[in-house]
Amino acid sequence: MKFIQFTVDHDSSVKKGIISSEGIKEISGNIFTSWDYTGDIFKENQIKVTSPLEPNQVIGIGANFVKEPEDLPAPPEMPVFFFKPTSSVIGPNEDIVIPEDLDSVKFESEIAVVIGKDAKNIQEDEVADYIFGYTIGNDVTAPQYFHSDGHWMLGKAFDTFTPLGPAIETDFDLAKTRIKAYHNEEKKQDSNVDVMIVSINKMISYLSRVLTLKAGDVILTGSPVGAEFLQEEDTIECEVEGVGRLRNQVVKERKKVSL
Amino acid sequence: MKFIQFTVDHDSSVKKGIISSEGIKEISGNIFTSWDYTGDIFKENQIKVTSPLEPNQVIGIGANFVKEPEDLPAPPEMPVFFFKPTSSVIGPNEDIVIPEDLDSVKFESEIAVVIGKDAKNIQEDEVADYIFGYTIGNDVTAPQYFHSDGHWMLGKAFDTFTPLGPAIETDFDLAKTRIKAYHNEEKKQDSNVDVMIVSINKMISYLSRVLTLKAGDVILTGSPVGAEFLQEEDTIECEVEGVGRLRNQVVKERKKVSL
Repeated sequence: MKFIQFTVDHDSSVKKGIISSEGIKEISGNIFTSWDYTGDIFKENQIKVTSPLEPNQVIGIGANFVKEPEDLPAPPEMPVFFFKPTSSVIGPNEDIVIPEDLDSVKFESEIAVVIGKDAKNIQEDEVADYIFGYTIGNDVTAPQYFHSDGHWMLGKAFDTFTPLGPAIETDFDLAKTRIKAYHNEEKKQDSNVDVMIVSINKMISYLSRVLTLKAGDVILTGSPVGAEFLQEEDTIECEVEGVGRLRNQVVKERKKVSL
Repeated sequence: MKFIQFTVDHDSSVKKGIISSEGIKEISGNIFTSWDYTGDIFKENQIKVTSPLEPNQVIGIGANFVKEPEDLPAPPEMPVFFFKPTSSVIGPNEDIVIPEDLDSVKFESEIAVVIGKDAKNIQEDEVADYIFGYTIGNDVTAPQYFHSDGHWMLGKAFDTFTPLGPAIETDFDLAKTRIKAYHNEEKKQDSNVDVMIVSINKMISYLSRVLTLKAGDVILTGSPVGAEFLQEEDTIECEVEGVGRLRNQVVKERKKVSL
């Protein structure tokens, strides 16, 4: 099933729904625990899709892809993880904003795992039970704001730096997917999970040994080789085959306080 | 005013209240927007204090104190910031849990600023308007889990690593406070804000240029010189004069999956 969130016309309240052949069937309740159809069905052209959830937290993993399977190193003893703030989340077709003092920011197309229930100290072979579904994430990054001592927090944290969506797909075959990015319609990323260094099961099991993952946590699982910089007026489409395509356009921040 | 959260007897539902000379006056509503007294008053010995809020997000700043004012460097162009997960928050008197594979973790007594409303691109002299109040934070840290490339995420992220409380004090004179820690009742930290490198106004203004800070965000403002390691059965009390004392005891994690 494909879960989305959306608004209708001039009503800014965010509704939940499921994409079906009949249209967008509205649901009410909590997608992780208990929900029901409201009976309302909307047509695609009636709605504006927003981010498919308000994540509880967003966690990313660093440098997790190589180009070819023969380049694969042994998985690191300690992967590089980082948090992104929930304030950075936007939906499809919303603007990615380049901070005023920068000329460009990087796109990174990624499979985004949505956790469905509390996960603590889980084994790799148990991870599937804790995954609610998969969406697409663009881990927008300003490496200009990486600290020289290695801290990535600021460079990952700007408002609009975490586009998510359009849908959370619960029926998804990880082994068959490809993760792609189209920068101004030109393909720049295109890999499958065979060139992922730390597998999704391994990274979620590892994280669960440290912190209790919660329903609504989103794990950005790393971006294929080929990520580049975006500039004002660019478009970026991130695709995860079997899940969908996440399109955003890029604008420049216009006013900001001086330091 | 001193805002707390608490439970009563065998009822696990978390109540909100204000400490007064008559007792703990229960309130209902949202402390950041609109609240009212319920009319119920509890005695201190009737209640168990929990963390004073469920933070929206927790942000910390690295290495922000020197020993003496004459050691103060110029504030860095780019401070080191990091996120801690909300799953790491515990309240007063709860156990800090040392992960199974470690023997010790570090305590760091800190002033914790509670943001009261959306803050984006604010100037240093506007910061006070966006602060709801102050509580005490213990930025518990396992430097053994700092990545060799500089990423602190895992070492700051374990469950129980962010004790907060007991109260959020809204009437607080930053210039007069001292930040202290007592490790097994021995004083190990004791500084005022004159030896803070990046001031609270500066760090919050800086952060607001990157991300929209929200009501309920907690900023851990750095820890004085003197932080040390905690071991099983230790007690740690963090004090911020004018706010209170936050006491926790240390235990060892007993069971965990193997990798």
